[in-house]
Amino acid sequence: MTTRTTAELIEAALQRDPRAVARLISLVEDHDPSATSILATLFPRTGSAHVVGLTGAPGSGKSTLTDQLIRHVRSIGEEVGILAVDPSSPFTGGAILGDRIRMQDHIGDRGVYIRSMGSRGHLGGVAEATPKAIMILDAIGIPHVFVETVGVGQAEVEIVESADTTVVVVNPGWGDSVQANKAGLLEIGDIFVVNKADRDGVAEAVRDLEQMLDLGATRPWRPPVLATVATTGQGILSVWEAAQEHRAFLESTGRLIEIRSARLRQELHRAVIAEFMRRAEGTAENDRLFTLAAEVDARRLDPWTAARRLLDER
Amino acid sequence: MTTRTTAELIEAALQRDPRAVARLISLVEDHDPSATSILATLFPRTGSAHVVGLTGAPGSGKSTLTDQLIRHVRSIGEEVGILAVDPSSPFTGGAILGDRIRMQDHIGDRGVYIRSMGSRGHLGGVAEATPKAIMILDAIGIPHVFVETVGVGQAEVEIVESADTTVVVVNPGWGDSVQANKAGLLEIGDIFVVNKADRDGVAEAVRDLEQMLDLGATRPWRPPVLATVATTGQGILSVWEAAQEHRAFLESTGRLIEIRSARLRQELHRAVIAEFMRRAEGTAENDRLFTLAAEVDARRLDPWTAARRLLDER
Repeated sequence: MTTRTTAELIEAALQRDPRAVARLISLVEDHDPSATSILATLFPRTGSAHVVGLTGAPGSGKSTLTDQLIRHVRSIGEEVGILAVDPSSPFTGGAILGDRIRMQDHIGDRGVYIRSMGSRGHLGGVAEATPKAIMILDAIGIPHVFVETVGVGQAEVEIVESADTTVVVVNPGWGDSVQANKAGLLEIGDIFVVNKADRDGVAEAVRDLEQMLDLGATRPWRPPVLATVATTGQGILSVWEAAQEHRAFLESTGRLIEIRSARLRQELHRAVIAEFMRRAEGTAENDRLFTLAAEVDARRLDPWTAARRLLDER
Repeated sequence: MTTRTTAELIEAALQRDPRAVARLISLVEDHDPSATSILATLFPRTGSAHVVGLTGAPGSGKSTLTDQLIRHVRSIGEEVGILAVDPSSPFTGGAILGDRIRMQDHIGDRGVYIRSMGSRGHLGGVAEATPKAIMILDAIGIPHVFVETVGVGQAEVEIVESADTTVVVVNPGWGDSVQANKAGLLEIGDIFVVNKADRDGVAEAVRDLEQMLDLGATRPWRPPVLATVATTGQGILSVWEAAQEHRAFLESTGRLIEIRSARLRQELHRAVIAEFMRRAEGTAENDRLFTLAAEVDARRLDPWTAARRLLDER
């Protein structure tokens, strides 16, 4: 493959060349010099994709559910992008299990764009790169983007903030250890899925969730609680339909415009911090930071005063 | 109580006046103008306290274990500070259950300094405030500081990074949902405690952990796995002794100096970001940020180009 110019790459991506799409995502992820023009060129084209976040404890069958949703989207002849995010990898050093297998399933299907957003050294990296990857898929005209995260920690919540519609996947008999996350999950979920509905305790899990949802303040959108068996595809259609209903709800109430504005403001906020740190790391400020760090290390200067000094000197 | 000057407050805190200590922590947490001089005055006095982080799933009995450790520390006539951190509160809106009860237990005991680090609006707030609170307790001469966090998400891991010694509390039969955290937990734990050792499955849980610890790369410190019944105090002494051994290990190998230097560098890094954002929010830059945000909202300008423009104009 000959090296293509940025403009050629963008053109190819707009023609749905999967390698070009993958390359664009890599370039923005890596802060390549061309990232600037890629983002500037593609950003005005964004705002059409429906971004669906899928989150839940590892082992909940979230990936299988996502796979079934992909199959459904393809069966109705539409294209879909999938970002599989694993922010925990700084600790495990591992990639998402099964992801290769899933990719192989869809090799040759040019209507499916799967991308693993592994951590590149630090957590902020994933949180920063994911919205950019969504933006690229959105800009080239992919109508559905699924963002699948592992776990339900703060990082996952942040990433799910990129979604228009958030699907929370739980299992029957989800234990004590998840109890504490319930409150958080209840607030982020637009759709709740009790997966592995062929096991015991489904009715209880559904009732438990329904009751908790009813306990809270009345909200304009009451999240449905759906039971699925992702391995067989049972219930998948209802999840898909609920996602479409939620999207329609967001559009008809003007909520979609609101949440997208809020998201862009937050993205700008994050971009300012990231850009500031990148500049500080590559300049004379870095030398000054180094000197101040030595003072802090010797406990002659506290970190907070050091930070103020660094910024005063700019 | 008459209003005291900052110098008087610091003096009173150094004399172990608990109200003065609490007030100093509040002032730095709230970014009061006096925070600057408080931190500058106290920081050079830091570096002596042994900071022990305690983490684990909610319901693991972590608080009861901490309570028993407090009792032990008091029984040997030493002072102790406890920071109870609950970063999940932006979602739940709740405080740490049982905390008031625990506080009441120790009311009148001037050797125990308990502080709830509730979230003040956003997560960064807790992560930013906790190291400062540790610093104040350290500076006034409290030899043992326990930092207890709820849950095992990224925020908790960040806060546990403030600790010299990290105790991970699990229970017999910890379920599938925690499995995925195991890798992360294995890396952050210096001591593993299987609490509720009066239940079934203790031997299995201990063996499970021991095996996983042995699977990993050989490390200079092999974390011990201890069984406790926190409600009765069984095994608490061995946890305490393990913490002291770990501290001695860190000192004798020079690791303590290394990790504290790394921690201060990270604290400086965080302080620079926090200070930068605080400045941007209160100045002409904020107006500019507002204008740029409107451009982004109209999708005429991407957030990343907007961030660069803002910083170019400084």
